[in-house]
Formats: sequence, C-alpha cells, structure tokens
Amino acid sequence: MNNQSALKIDLNCDLGESFGPWKMGNDAAILPLISSANIACGFHAGDPTIMHQTVKLALENNVAIGAHPSLPDLQGFGRRNLAITPEEAYDLIVYQVGALKGFLEAIGGKLHHVKPHGALYQMAARDKTLALSIAHAIADISKGEAIFYGFAGSCMIEAGREADIPVASEVFADRTYQKDGNLTSRREANALIIDPEIALKQVLQMIQEKSVTTTCGEIISLEADTLCIHGDGITALEFAKAIHKSLHSHHISITSAI
Amino acid sequence: MNNQSALKIDLNCDLGESFGPWKMGNDAAILPLISSANIACGFHAGDPTIMHQTVKLALENNVAIGAHPSLPDLQGFGRRNLAITPEEAYDLIVYQVGALKGFLEAIGGKLHHVKPHGALYQMAARDKTLALSIAHAIADISKGEAIFYGFAGSCMIEAGREADIPVASEVFADRTYQKDGNLTSRREANALIIDPEIALKQVLQMIQEKSVTTTCGEIISLEADTLCIHGDGITALEFAKAIHKSLHSHHISITSAI
Amino acid sequence: MNNQSALKIDLNCDLGESFGPWKMGNDAAILPLISSANIACGFHAGDPTIMHQTVKLALENNVAIGAHPSLPDLQGFGRRNLAITPEEAYDLIVYQVGALKGFLEAIGGKLHHVKPHGALYQMAARDKTLALSIAHAIADISKGEAIFYGFAGSCMIEAGREADIPVASEVFADRTYQKDGNLTSRREANALIIDPEIALKQVLQMIQEKSVTTTCGEIISLEADTLCIHGDGITALEFAKAIHKSLHSHHISITSAI
Amino acid sequence: MNNQSALKIDLNCDLGESFGPWKMGNDAAILPLISSANIACGFHAGDPTIMHQTVKLALENNVAIGAHPSLPDLQGFGRRNLAITPEEAYDLIVYQVGALKGFLEAIGGKLHHVKPHGALYQMAARDKTLALSIAHAIADISKGEAIFYGFAGSCMIEAGREADIPVASEVFADRTYQKDGNLTSRREANALIIDPEIALKQVLQMIQEKSVTTTCGEIISLEADTLCIHGDGITALEFAKAIHKSLHSHHISITSAI
Repeated sequence: MNNQSALKIDLNCDLGESFGPWKMGNDAAILPLISSANIACGFHAGDPTIMHQTVKLALENNVAIGAHPSLPDLQGFGRRNLAITPEEAYDLIVYQVGALKGFLEAIGGKLHHVKPHGALYQMAARDKTLALSIAHAIADISKGEAIFYGFAGSCMIEAGREADIPVASEVFADRTYQKDGNLTSRREANALIIDPEIALKQVLQMIQEKSVTTTCGEIISLEADTLCIHGDGITALEFAKAIHKSLHSHHISITSAI
Repeated sequence: MNNQSALKIDLNCDLGESFGPWKMGNDAAILPLISSANIACGFHAGDPTIMHQTVKLALENNVAIGAHPSLPDLQGFGRRNLAITPEEAYDLIVYQVGALKGFLEAIGGKLHHVKPHGALYQMAARDKTLALSIAHAIADISKGEAIFYGFAGSCMIEAGREADIPVASEVFADRTYQKDGNLTSRREANALIIDPEIALKQVLQMIQEKSVTTTCGEIISLEADTLCIHGDGITALEFAKAIHKSLHSHHISITSAI
Repeated sequence: MNNQSALKIDLNCDLGESFGPWKMGNDAAILPLISSANIACGFHAGDPTIMHQTVKLALENNVAIGAHPSLPDLQGFGRRNLAITPEEAYDLIVYQVGALKGFLEAIGGKLHHVKPHGALYQMAARDKTLALSIAHAIADISKGEAIFYGFAGSCMIEAGREADIPVASEVFADRTYQKDGNLTSRREANALIIDPEIALKQVLQMIQEKSVTTTCGEIISLEADTLCIHGDGITALEFAKAIHKSLHSHHISITSAI
Repeated sequence: MNNQSALKIDLNCDLGESFGPWKMGNDAAILPLISSANIACGFHAGDPTIMHQTVKLALENNVAIGAHPSLPDLQGFGRRNLAITPEEAYDLIVYQVGALKGFLEAIGGKLHHVKPHGALYQMAARDKTLALSIAHAIADISKGEAIFYGFAGSCMIEAGREADIPVASEVFADRTYQKDGNLTSRREANALIIDPEIALKQVLQMIQEKSVTTTCGEIISLEADTLCIHGDGITALEFAKAIHKSLHSHHISITSAI
C-alpha cells in the first residue's frame, strides 16, 4: 500500500447522489479532479437511471468506479443509524454492489472498490462484527478483488485484512482528528477545518509523513491511501482544485492504484 | 429449441415473493417440482435477505435460477401498469438482474434466465419497443447468455431473437387461449381452466402437438419451451404434482435446458 | 363561481416538492405572488418534515392551503400513469389529504382545496369514474367543504359537481389549447407559449372573456377560476411577477375565494 | 385513571398490519375480544387500502380506534431502531396520525388513542425528549384529546402528563418484569411467560393489586390501564380468549374508557 520512491494518493468522491427529479452535486465538474468515484446504489440516493448515467460519466472521465452502498433510508439520505444485523448488512451490500456491477457489465468498466455510505460507514468504523460482515460481502461479490475503502485506523481496515481483501485507508482534509484517531465530533467547535491552507497542510502531512496532528497538538501516525473529496458546493469544488494543484506541485501523483 | 427424438419442457415458478415480515408462497414445497425458479428482485417483492435465502434454497434444490424483475410497485405487487419509458425499463432490468447476480456471485450459481414480472411482462408482450429494451438489457448484463422467458408467440420472443439472446416461449396450463394467441382476458367467464384434467390435456397438446385449441375450437400452433407453475395455494401445489406425474407418464422430461 | 362586478382569479402553485436532502422549487420567493398553495403529501414529493415546514411557510404568507396528492411514485415524481382502481384512488386521496390535514390541525390553518398531482390529474381529467372517486374522497374527508381544483371543462369539474363539492376550473397561461378544450400535447411543436406577452394576453382573455383562442384560431368558452403558476426556474418566477403586475393593472383581484 | 368501585382494563391489539398483497394477523377473529385497536399507518405496515378496510372492520366491531405510527421501515417492520431527531418524530406522528384521522373523517369514528409501534415505542420509553416530542404531536393533532398509550412507569407516561394529554399505562401479560419496572430482555431465558396460567395470574395481580412480581420475587407497584394482546398465531388467539374469560369471571370489565 505504500511506495517509498513516489508518493501518491487516491482522491475519491461520492457521485450519482441525485434521485428521480431531484439533482444533487456537480458530478461533471468534480470528475476531472478525482481518481475514484463512489456511486450511490439506490438506497440513500441514486436510482437505476441515475446509476446508468453516472457509470457512463465516470467511464468517460476514466476514473475508477466503486459502489457506495447505504442503509435503506432515502429520506434521511442514509445518515441516520439504523440497527441492522450483520446478516442484513451482508445482504444489503451484496444487493447494492450487485446492482452497480450490473451497470458495469452492461455498459463497461470494472468494480474497483466499495465504500459504505454515511451512517453505515460510521457504524462499521466502530463495530468490528458489522465491518467484518461488510468485508465478507465485498470479498464474496468480487472474488476478493474489490478494495474496501474504510476509515483509516478503524476496524474497517482490520476487517478487510481479515477477510483477505485489499483495503484503502481513507482520510479527510477538512476534519480535525483526536488522539484516538477518530474525527472530532461535529458537535465540537473545532471539528471542521475552515482554512484551506491548514487543510492542504494536513493533507500533505498525511501523505508525506503518514501522520496527522490532533487538536491537542499530538502527532499520531496514520495510513493515507485515499482522500475524501466533497462534491457539492462551489467551495468544495474550489477546494478540490486547490488540493489537486497542491498535490501536483509536491509531486504526489493522484491515482486509484493501490 | 426443439428436439424431435425426446420431448421436454421446463417448469418455471415465481419464488422469493415474501417481503420483510410478510410471507408468501410455499417455496420449499414447490422447488422439488420445478426445473427453474424466477426470483423476485425487490421491486414487487423480495428484499435482500429474502433474495439471499431464496437463492440458497434454489441452489439446494438444483433448479436453474432466473431473475424476476418488476415495475417498482411493492404495494401493487408489480401488477399495475406503470408508464415507464423503454430507457427506464432497460435500467430497471439491469439494476434488478444485477442485484440477483450479486447473490449468485456471492453464494454460488449462475444466471440462467430473466422473466419480467406481472404488469411489466404483459406490457412487454404487447409493446415491441419495450420488449426490445428489456431484451437488450438481458443481453448486455449476461453477455448474451441468459434466456429471455417471454409469452409464446408475442413480441417478447421476437425481441429476444432480434437482440440475439436465447428465448424460451412460455405457456400456461390453466388459462384459455384466443385465436390471436393471446390469453383470454380474466374479465371473461372462460378465462380460467378449472378442471385439472382439461388443463393437463392442454399441456400435453402444447408439448406434443406444439399447438393449443382456442376457446372457439380452432387449433393454433404454439411454441412451448417453459410452463408457468403457480406456487401458492394448496390447489396450485396439487396441480403442480399432477402435471409432474402426467409429464413423466408421457415420457416428457422436465428440464431447464433449452 | 363568477362575479360580474369585479373580476378575480386565484393563482395556485405546487409547493413543498423537496424530499429529504433534495431541494426543489423556490417556495419562499413564489409564495408572495400566489393566493393558494398545493402542498405535496409524500407520494411524489414532500416528506413529513418538509410538509411541516411548507405549511408553516404558507401560513406566514397567508395563502390558502391545499393538498396536492399523487400516485405513489417518488422516482417518477408522480408523472407516470399507474393503473390504479377507483377504490385505490379514493384511499390514496384520503390518506394524503388526511396527512396534510394533520399538519393543519397541529400548526394551524384549514384545508382550502385539493388538486391532484401530475399523472393522477391527467388521468382524472379523462376518466370520469376516477374523477368521481377522487371527488367523493375530497367530499368525505372535508365534510364537503374543500374545493376540487380540476382541469377546466374536464370531467373533474363534472365529478366535483356531482359529488356536491365546490370546484375550481384550472387554466394554464403557458400552454396552448385545442378545439376540444384540451391542452396541445407536449409532443407538438406549438404546445408551449414561449412569449410572455402572448401568455399574458391568453390569461386576460380567459378571465375577461371567459374564453381561449385555440391553435386553429377558434375561440372556445372556458371557465377560469384558478391559474396554475410554475414555481421553479428563474423564468417562472419572472413570469409569475409579470402576471401579477398585469392582473393588477387590469383591476383583476388575486384571491383564493371562489 | 383508576376506579375503586369497579375494576376495569382496556385490551388493545395491533391491527391492519397487512401490506399490499401480503396478509398478517387475524383481525376479524381478534376484534370481538378487544376494546381498542391500534391501526398501522403505512410506515411499518398498512397501506391506504388496508387502513380503509381496517377502520371499517374496527367500526363494525365497535372498538375504540387508535393510530399505531412507526419509524419508516417497511422491510424491518418498524422494529429496528432508527436515529431520528425529536423534530422528525413529531412530524412522523403528525403525518401518520393525520392519515388515519383522514379515514375516520371519511368513514366514521373518532381518534381514541395513539400508540407508537415497535422500535419507536421502545426508544420513547427510554428517551424523555423523544417521548415529549411524540406527546406534543399527539396533543397538537387531537386538541389534547387522544390518549397516549405508553409503557407503564416509563417516561412516555411522564411525557404525556407534561404535555397535558390523557395517558394509558400499558402492561404485558406474557412478559416478565425487572425490579426497575422494565421488561426482561428477550435475550434472557426467562423473558417470556409461556404458561397461560401464570400469565393470567400476572394480569389479575396487575389489575387487582396494581403491582407485578419481578423475576427476583419483589413486588413492585404498577399502573395497568391497558393490556397488550397479540393478534397473530393460534396460541395468541386462544390466550386472548382465556384472558377475556378470566377477566369476566373476576368481574373486571373490559373497556377502552379511561
């Protein structure tokens, strides 16, 4: 997962999060700036027609295509915890990833990765049993080839390794970190990094030093295989461009290859 | 699709039509009697967990596994016409068949066929453009290998042939036929064949003579590759057993192979 | 429904058509320009939280509040025909209008009218049995007090009268009319009126002359109790303002009272 | 809420929990045995047509009619915790109770009570803020008249009192109780009372002594206004009949009046 001679990072972004008549995000603008796309699979956003269009757009932009499965909660956009069993999680993952693979088979492309969405991601980052169930689903539906995108340092990464599938440790540019490696809760005043300069600095430290400085000033080590980029909002797009530029100027290549 | 030296027929049945806490059908009892299963994919019935269980059950019973995609209408059980575009139909098919293939990849088995459900089936039997869109979806998601189960003599069969995929002409044991090859509308008094003896006779004629006698007494020719068996109701199960017995005594083999 | 001494018209607009995280329309901007709001009830758009917010916003703007019930089709935004029975239509209306009335009872306000949405509206305009079923649902849930907004000259208006409920004949500013009183199909090149001047002229003719000039040049008579205003798009808002101004300058009052 | 001179209890049961083509429960058989019905409102079970039928059936059997609103989770039958906000809970309650009131207005009857379903009930029993939000929704949609059915001794009862609405303390016949007044978790071996004699004895103690004996042998005091009766399963029906008979022989009247 690392490469001493040449630094690199994957930039991933959630795409295809429109639904029916409702638009979300700015997929066409963000696609040239990223190396991998997490495509919504209909449970928190996306519908079959939007998935078709999004896969097509991702192929045109030559980015790696991943599934972005969610808890079944359209109204809550998959952001509300739902007490599912590990078996239900397995089945949800297989169903949604299968649906996305359907479009890849029909239109072209290959499943590169799976990144759970929203509350499912956060639940899995704290619940090893759930994370393992998700990892096994990913293993089983991709012959062990698809990469499990999980929160860096969390049990998602452990679970992926135990399930013998490739993993990518995900980090965040605009969020502060705690001593235990978790993100600062959004309820805290200092959860978000507003200043783009500081965010860029954090990104460089993550990639170059494999570490991050916590809100208490401590430096903790951290794997950084893939960086989450937000797709909606003008600021988000500007910030994505700034990250892009900064990475290039530091000779860090942007690639989905791990 | 025919074999002069040895007569045969496929017996197909809709399975996995429970949803969440609600049960439907008697899958375990019907499975030993059929050669191919049409598994609901979540749009009219079935949910990821039920799909998982149903695929497993079908594998244990060694029947050919097909997808049974539907219009999105859980409350109406996919039986109410919905004015979708051909493009939407394509996407619905890819999504649902993809989801089922996900379970096949995860658990085992191979996609054998696709049979549209309920109103989608009936709309496709009358609308060549829609039927073609479905056929292309089946072709694209299965590298042209999955069999399109369609109403015998309808434009579904034509569409499958134009899309260069294998087709299976479906016939019905307990419904009467009109001169144009359509089923008698359920609004007519003589739509259903109540007497099992007459139904069995119709089935034998379909397979042995490749014809059916219409309500007006005319004999029209008909392909019969697969026979639809109903899965719920005690009578349905009894009737399935009677068909099974009758086919065996007439040396007609029951097989999903076409 | 008419008043010789003082001309008047109701301006109605569909509101509350966001869903979960997805925004639609510009409710706050359009509300000051209209006299009655048709609030989505969760089947094509709107969710309980958005309904709450929209009722509140409508009350603050002092517009008459109506329910905007739909076929159950979130992905299709209620715009695809679905073959429901008249009994199912009755139940759908009672459920959705009841849900909206719940918010009126909880927050304040009174149910003023019911306008079916999208495909349900268009199906009812052509199917008297369906229209009657809807009219009876409106009658039963409002003690006969809520106004049935229906397409001018259609069987919706007849149905409302037969069900003994008040009706409002709806007309359109930006659509052309046929000799039979129907709108020109959107498939025709001349379906839409693009020029705001012509649209304004049509509106004035409808109100002042109780007639409309068809695409063939004929003048047909027409009731015009309420005019449909579109809420989304900058042009729509500009056009709403232009209508507003034009009506004022012609001493036509804008009011939901019929 | 109590009456020294004549003992009484309400028997409530969840009804209308079919959905679309799927049947659940045995509403017609249980209705003669109960005094109040909790009718599903479409979020965990029930659809507009089933609600219509269930309200009609309840009216014919002259039982008090209540709403049985749920978290939005059809597949999980509303039994999986979902992390909604108190504001979302308020809106869910208003929407669903409003929809049920729609049928009462259309067909007849009056809203008697509201009993949250499944996970929402259990979450509210432990979360005062959530319980208050639900209580305020009930107050607002019924002019403070509908009775809040809540778990005896829980913060649901407190919340109802604070919101100044009538409350009914609900008890269970076939579940054992802990010292803190909670039910024994279903994960424990002694959670369920299997022996009908013991269950009947517990019911009589609850009503006559206003107490229950915990699994540790302690007697704790308990309000018992309404007893939950299960509607599905032959055993459930037999047990309901046994309770009915036992209550009559002990001169305890069965009534929804509180």
